[in-house]
Amino acid sequence: MSDISPLATPFPDLPPIAGVSVAVARARYKAWDRCDLTLVRFDEGTTVAGVTTKSKCPSPEVEWCRAVLPLGSARALVVNAGNSNAFTGSRGRAAVEAIAARVAAGIGCLPSDVLVSSTGVIGVPLPIDKAEAGIDAALAAPPASWLQATETIGTTDTFPKAASTSAIVGGRTVTLVGIIKGSGMIAPDMATMLGYIFTDAAIEPGLLQRMLDEANGQSFSCITVDGDTSTSDTVLAFATNKAGHAPLASIEDDGADAFQAALSEICLRLAHLVVRDGEGASKFIEVAVEGAVSDESARTIGLSIANSPLVKTAIAGEDANWGRIVMAVGKAGEPAERDRLAIRFGATQVASGGLAVEGYDEAPVAAHLKGQDIEIGVDLGLGEGRATVWTCDLTHGYISINADYRS
Amino acid sequence: MSDISPLATPFPDLPPIAGVSVAVARARYKAWDRCDLTLVRFDEGTTVAGVTTKSKCPSPEVEWCRAVLPLGSARALVVNAGNSNAFTGSRGRAAVEAIAARVAAGIGCLPSDVLVSSTGVIGVPLPIDKAEAGIDAALAAPPASWLQATETIGTTDTFPKAASTSAIVGGRTVTLVGIIKGSGMIAPDMATMLGYIFTDAAIEPGLLQRMLDEANGQSFSCITVDGDTSTSDTVLAFATNKAGHAPLASIEDDGADAFQAALSEICLRLAHLVVRDGEGASKFIEVAVEGAVSDESARTIGLSIANSPLVKTAIAGEDANWGRIVMAVGKAGEPAERDRLAIRFGATQVASGGLAVEGYDEAPVAAHLKGQDIEIGVDLGLGEGRATVWTCDLTHGYISINADYRS
Repeated sequence: MSDISPLATPFPDLPPIAGVSVAVARARYKAWDRCDLTLVRFDEGTTVAGVTTKSKCPSPEVEWCRAVLPLGSARALVVNAGNSNAFTGSRGRAAVEAIAARVAAGIGCLPSDVLVSSTGVIGVPLPIDKAEAGIDAALAAPPASWLQATETIGTTDTFPKAASTSAIVGGRTVTLVGIIKGSGMIAPDMATMLGYIFTDAAIEPGLLQRMLDEANGQSFSCITVDGDTSTSDTVLAFATNKAGHAPLASIEDDGADAFQAALSEICLRLAHLVVRDGEGASKFIEVAVEGAVSDESARTIGLSIANSPLVKTAIAGEDANWGRIVMAVGKAGEPAERDRLAIRFGATQVASGGLAVEGYDEAPVAAHLKGQDIEIGVDLGLGEGRATVWTCDLTHGYISINADYRS
Repeated sequence: MSDISPLATPFPDLPPIAGVSVAVARARYKAWDRCDLTLVRFDEGTTVAGVTTKSKCPSPEVEWCRAVLPLGSARALVVNAGNSNAFTGSRGRAAVEAIAARVAAGIGCLPSDVLVSSTGVIGVPLPIDKAEAGIDAALAAPPASWLQATETIGTTDTFPKAASTSAIVGGRTVTLVGIIKGSGMIAPDMATMLGYIFTDAAIEPGLLQRMLDEANGQSFSCITVDGDTSTSDTVLAFATNKAGHAPLASIEDDGADAFQAALSEICLRLAHLVVRDGEGASKFIEVAVEGAVSDESARTIGLSIANSPLVKTAIAGEDANWGRIVMAVGKAGEPAERDRLAIRFGATQVASGGLAVEGYDEAPVAAHLKGQDIEIGVDLGLGEGRATVWTCDLTHGYISINADYRS
């Protein structure tokens, strides 16, 4: 276990969600003394939506989720930590099917009502006997807390990451709780490794999916730690229909806007927590791009900056080397005109019109860079496109963590 | 100055090239005690071709080269080290024009016959007075050696990089010498920072350009150190027409194949030298991709592997973590089928058909990874596309060099 990230925030108080019960167990996927299997049970009537990695080499868990998500209903979620089960051929697929069958038999549902995720090393088949023993133990276990569940889904995470919020829908207060794990192998085209959002709201699965896609596009898909995209990235949202309001079926329905806002907010907070636990991170960096030819172009340019090793090492060194921002804009491949480009650090404009600003004073920039929360602003001066992305700096800590992870 | 790269190779003996004379001088672009301006003069009749960065924010030097290269003739090359002059607006453009005018007046040629490059920090206008004084000193200086020129174009380079070769054209031996600088901010879409190839062959500029494009596509465009693309990348080839053979005008001409082979070889050797001086590098890594749907797809997948921080840190740690190769193939966005994918380290197959090979023995892989020259082979099993790319590992040295480069 690495030292706790200097950007860590305290674990919040999280309310229960009606219709959701959590258990954890020791499947002993690795030789460690900790729980590594999480089982979340849902009452009947729970709907589900999800987004998964765009990797062309996804894990069998991701394929399973993609197959059952269109059915829109869920009775259980199993998360295995310590072994991603990715790239394990038919043995990996068999392990996922065995897990779903075991849980289905235990709680009396269809295997297709069981969502499954695994995270950890790639290339080692998940041992079915350990998974089944872990499930049996979890089925018999007393309820666990959100903190226990969050700690149990973690791997290289240095602190447990969760958030909650609420919204008024149809005159009722609905509550959302989200838990997430992820620290390295974090990049857009989904992003994060595993995140789960639970709510007592009543939402038809098609609408829940649409809302999750919307929230994801502004949160998990806008963060990067190292530009590396996991084979196992999954975010799932479960709605238990316990809050007592009329089910939402359309974005036009009363309260749908409020729920979308709450869902987007919790996804953004969870995404930021992943960046705050970025491997080796010492700075939280926001890159705000405006004036691009489109929002998508702005996001591509923002991610080019956020993924640049030279930008990230400069910020680690608290070095106001804005020329590296120019470099990263230039390499993004998106429309850019050097002589319209403007760049700021924090509130201080450093360059505009294609050169350093007249009388540029580095002192306020240097002071800003000594802080933990860094803002980079880029205005391309071409159009109305804008996007904000988040990342962390690149430090010796990242090298130390990753040069000898598997051993 | 960093310690010399452990992958450094000795500086070779380099022959003179008829029609080429080299001088170096102290322009004092930085407060350092070294030559930082290189002036190369060419006899009349010298042709030139070049490739420059695809950055959307190129330096005024790159724009100058792009403007004069179509004319196809060259009488001089000036290379400034310590200041890239990039992103400096009209003052940067004025500096380049002043340099070309000063050299043209000094040797009696057109300003458009003077190629100019600069390398170093971005965002500081090149001081015209220092450049002009440096040019005057170089014009009056005695001839310098290839080694002196190579050292003078370097910045963060830890060893001087050059190569030579020869070919038989029209019954005559033609000689090629190349010098290059580059260590960080090295990525495809051109690649390298500054490289120059000199030959006494006689080649029409259109053919020289075509041959350089061909060589570049298999060499400089297939290396990466950090995925960051410089604003100043430039490779120029000069042919002085002194070898006494009939000028080559078409790839069908007798001897053109031999010259192309020699040019491609010297470009590849120079590109490999840049990787060997990659910032913080301790391993030289070759990534060979085959079975892709096209050569371009294979190159994209190869570069996804070569740019992955997780792959590069695993190799730095001599960790046979082949799951990270799967991850990097999966995130490349190119056609790939997990269950057809095969991976090897050195001569040892580690995975095929979508999972680890039966009875996989890590011992020979671990032994391979302890060496300095690492081979990664990926077969996608889809088609005939293939490409080879080169990179280095990602170590604490890269962080140390770049977290405080500018200061």
